[in-house]
Amino acid sequence: MKSETFRWICESTDGAARAGRLQTAHGPVETPTFMPVGTVGTVKAMTMDAVRSTGAGIVLGNTYHLMLRPGAERVRALGGLHRFMDWPGPILTDSGGFQVMSLGALRKLDQDGVTFQSHIDGSKYRLDPERSTAIQHALDATITMCLDECPALPAESEAIAASMRMSMRWAARSREAFVARPGYGQFGIVQGGTEPELRAESVKALTEIGFEGYAVGGLAVGEGQELMFSTLDVTTPLMPSDAPRYLMGVGTPDDLLGAVERGIDMFDCVMPTRAGRTARAYTERGTMNLRNARFAGDARPISPHCDCLACSRHSRAYLHHLFRTNEILGPMLLTWHNLAYYQRLMRGIRAAIVDGTLAVHGAHLRAEWAAEDW
Amino acid sequence: MKSETFRWICESTDGAARAGRLQTAHGPVETPTFMPVGTVGTVKAMTMDAVRSTGAGIVLGNTYHLMLRPGAERVRALGGLHRFMDWPGPILTDSGGFQVMSLGALRKLDQDGVTFQSHIDGSKYRLDPERSTAIQHALDATITMCLDECPALPAESEAIAASMRMSMRWAARSREAFVARPGYGQFGIVQGGTEPELRAESVKALTEIGFEGYAVGGLAVGEGQELMFSTLDVTTPLMPSDAPRYLMGVGTPDDLLGAVERGIDMFDCVMPTRAGRTARAYTERGTMNLRNARFAGDARPISPHCDCLACSRHSRAYLHHLFRTNEILGPMLLTWHNLAYYQRLMRGIRAAIVDGTLAVHGAHLRAEWAAEDW
Ligand SMILES: [Zn+2]
Ligand SMILES: [Zn+2]
Repeated sequence: MKSETFRWICESTDGAARAGRLQTAHGPVETPTFMPVGTVGTVKAMTMDAVRSTGAGIVLGNTYHLMLRPGAERVRALGGLHRFMDWPGPILTDSGGFQVMSLGALRKLDQDGVTFQSHIDGSKYRLDPERSTAIQHALDATITMCLDECPALPAESEAIAASMRMSMRWAARSREAFVARPGYGQFGIVQGGTEPELRAESVKALTEIGFEGYAVGGLAVGEGQELMFSTLDVTTPLMPSDAPRYLMGVGTPDDLLGAVERGIDMFDCVMPTRAGRTARAYTERGTMNLRNARFAGDARPISPHCDCLACSRHSRAYLHHLFRTNEILGPMLLTWHNLAYYQRLMRGIRAAIVDGTLAVHGAHLRAEWAAEDW
Repeated sequence: MKSETFRWICESTDGAARAGRLQTAHGPVETPTFMPVGTVGTVKAMTMDAVRSTGAGIVLGNTYHLMLRPGAERVRALGGLHRFMDWPGPILTDSGGFQVMSLGALRKLDQDGVTFQSHIDGSKYRLDPERSTAIQHALDATITMCLDECPALPAESEAIAASMRMSMRWAARSREAFVARPGYGQFGIVQGGTEPELRAESVKALTEIGFEGYAVGGLAVGEGQELMFSTLDVTTPLMPSDAPRYLMGVGTPDDLLGAVERGIDMFDCVMPTRAGRTARAYTERGTMNLRNARFAGDARPISPHCDCLACSRHSRAYLHHLFRTNEILGPMLLTWHNLAYYQRLMRGIRAAIVDGTLAVHGAHLRAEWAAEDW
């Protein structure tokens, strides 16, 4: 397994949508895929057995959080992130850039990298392309991401261009720093805001460097779904067709469907896990807030189509009760449910691509999301 | 199964210690047994699958908490507590008395019952033997407890006697209110503080009424282990030998061993679950606080003898990290471990009783608890 070549194999297409298989040192992943977020070495409120049971194939770890606690060298000494968190499957780590850039006054950016203070104890750290890549190696990430920078939108075109070009220089340095190992890969990140020319320039720069996969960054930062989709419309057609495409930090079920229709293969987002801790359930019929009093006596499962632990054993009334009494089991069960829904959604979309029925399936999904609760 | 007669069968004795089997409408339980506390319809931070995996045979629910939220009639309408919380096995509910009596200024006791205000929203409730029994029936408790009252120790002998005699009158009323159903039982509660004569009087009163089991109440309320054990020494020999004996709210592993040696069959305590949420691990070698910095790089499992999820998949360093980062998975894994330890402890004690080697086994357990970490 360890000597497996890292590659993505396209199995079917339906319009711009692709069904494929990612082959890695830590096993295969069927795409399109949603990666649960395991920020600090745990998918919040879930055992990894529970994560596995939802059908997740790959999870994400956050370099920023892990470099602060417990520290990359600590994770390496303990056998790497897979062993540390009990996830033998593939792990993608981000570069740490996004979280560091969000620190505001606590960070200082220069052309070479970024200096920042820990949000926990104020201690000083430095992150640059080489350091970010080395940390991800220490964590034993199956997929390493390039360090990049992305300005908050809206921003001046010149600022976006300058930031994108710096990210492209950092991408080249990240690639230099990347240690090739069988079954491991590194993804470049397309930047350029919502400007087609800048996105095209970014794709060109990254493909000239050459990566095992390509991410679309700098979206889902407040620009709205329409601009996000129109940016994908002009970006994904330029991206290599034989490599996986990852839309970072996205999104709602509707975002995922629209992005797959535009040729995206991989996603990560805190939405299903965060919602699970705040009583919000994702279902085939949209979302519901289980704290709502109307669920106090509702004997039905959250979703009649779900085989998660919450739906197979418990009523909405029980979930309502758990959230009302602030019991830990509420977030545990609802996170499980939400991740099960996201995985089921992706499996359904993948099957439709393979069948060549994505248009019909997508229309059905959208009609159901808009329909009343069962 | 539902028509099973409720009874306790003694299988072996070793000194005063007994190994037996409790037969109930919801399946059998091997005794001695430790009942995890599922206060409000959930064993905190655990799925019931996880509780089952530790080998627990019976769990406890708290009438006071459940009558406030979600309410006994709600639970009944949703199919009873077993179905509500996904525990088809036996459930024992307390009477609500202990928690209500702890409300201090919020409750007013009279000879007929107790009036109190909810600690949540201040709304007024009444609890008396009939109401407590009816609530426990609505919850569908396999084992119903009598409503009793117990003064905080130390207290004047006369106060303890008066309180005990009132509890005995309440026990008769609770028995009157109890609806006999095959496989369901009701336990009387022996009171009388640490005074042998009062304990004897209480046992006599209860056995004259006649119950399916007998609990020892009013201990583990600050009197110390020595007084608790000496009270058991003069109480359990008077209790019926053909009925189960339950020591309420106890205790540490050492308390459990000492009480089994004195003829107790059943226990409940929040210690292993509460400790699991505060980083304290119970092991064969005593306790450890996983927040301690010495565990930051410790690659060993919490206990080499434990097959719980925490010990079979994770290092102490990982648990340390989870508690340091306040991740929900920390309490989840450590509660699991602690309950697994308590169940393993009880299985070991039971096996020793059956083998007639409890003295040797007990000495071994005590020596190990006092020994250094592995
Ligand atoms: Zn579900
Ligand atoms: Zn364990």
